[in-house]
Amino acid sequence: SQSERIVWLCEELGIDYELKIYQRERASLGAPLNLKAIHPTGTAPVIQDGDVTISESGAIMDYLMGQYGNGALSVSSNVPNFSDYAFWYHWGIGTFQSTTMTLIYIVKAGVEETHPVLQVLKQKITNSLEMMDQRLMQYTWLAGEDFTAADVYAVFIVTTMRLFTPFPLLGYSGIKRWLENVSHRPAYRRMIEKAEQSESRGEVPVLCDEAPRPMASY
Amino acid sequence: SQSERIVWLCEELGIDYELKIYQRERASLGAPLNLKAIHPTGTAPVIQDGDVTISESGAIMDYLMGQYGNGALSVSSNVPNFSDYAFWYHWGIGTFQSTTMTLIYIVKAGVEETHPVLQVLKQKITNSLEMMDQRLMQYTWLAGEDFTAADVYAVFIVTTMRLFTPFPLLGYSGIKRWLENVSHRPAYRRMIEKAEQSESRGEVPVLCDEAPRPMASY
Repeated sequence: SQSERIVWLCEELGIDYELKIYQRERASLGAPLNLKAIHPTGTAPVIQDGDVTISESGAIMDYLMGQYGNGALSVSSNVPNFSDYAFWYHWGIGTFQSTTMTLIYIVKAGVEETHPVLQVLKQKITNSLEMMDQRLMQYTWLAGEDFTAADVYAVFIVTTMRLFTPFPLLGYSGIKRWLENVSHRPAYRRMIEKAEQSESRGEVPVLCDEAPRPMASY
Repeated sequence: SQSERIVWLCEELGIDYELKIYQRERASLGAPLNLKAIHPTGTAPVIQDGDVTISESGAIMDYLMGQYGNGALSVSSNVPNFSDYAFWYHWGIGTFQSTTMTLIYIVKAGVEETHPVLQVLKQKITNSLEMMDQRLMQYTWLAGEDFTAADVYAVFIVTTMRLFTPFPLLGYSGIKRWLENVSHRPAYRRMIEKAEQSESRGEVPVLCDEAPRPMASY
């Protein structure tokens, strides 16, 4: 689930944490009702840190970086590539994931493959992948030469999220190399071991080139 | 368009700017092709500041606050309500707007009113409005007693964006009072005057209670 980002971020920042895994509701595959007791959004990820309870990936990431990051994984506003960091981080949250999620809903609603709205969304995803690929052909990581939270946010969209809305990554050599670099990060490997043990997906999707076989709906 | 947030933010921060208005493509109502020449996303808002060109509302807001805000409209990580600020800001970007946008696409794709997916999305929007309303019954602004970028981001979703996916605001007295407070802000009024002069929408939607009549699709 989207929670893998938070586990990964904690591993990258060396934050001690206790991981609680909730199973999706069998019928809806949505968040279980007992998450609602923790935060009114009722969605995962959600973290508890003393008196503070926060939901929403981006908010949790900003919070953890702000409290425990000591400047790591973000770019401060007086550094030249701050605007690149801000763009790629927010574009992942506000546009790329949002478009991908919309496609998941559209497919789930049974909209036909040939419907113009579905075509528009698929084109948006292709444009997004091309834009990312061009960036990653030029730079090692999205914000530049340093790995940041912008990468942590975006990786999930082209890996785990692809299991719910399959698209291929063939031909995107920048993205492919980026995902290979990700898969070599010790913190990422620890996340996969800890967080994903309960979900059997065969091969870890990070290195999978073709459109994966779709999992049950999101 | 979503650009109104940026005009509003500039007015709030007292930033000098030159506003360029692009008309949507007549056929698709999407962004015009000449925006693509400015930034690869080809979407509005986009800003140019010297050598820096940034697209994506959240990124532009972080950039403008980082460069010119001097701490205004954001909450720093050592202040107790930082987690509230982070949550409401990112929830607006990552969940509330994303869900609303998905509903716009689903309706545009002709999915029937009774389809479970459409019902799930409508319920998510109702839950979101209820959560915001409860917050705004307790606090003047989303992050607490001070007006922040979290408000700037979210207001558009329940005002202008409602013109594309009509939902009523009747009964949400917290949201209603919040929008009234917004409509009294001089910077907001200047934004409406400057940015929206080209779009005739009759009454400024900020004070409209019922579900507005839908505009042409997004």
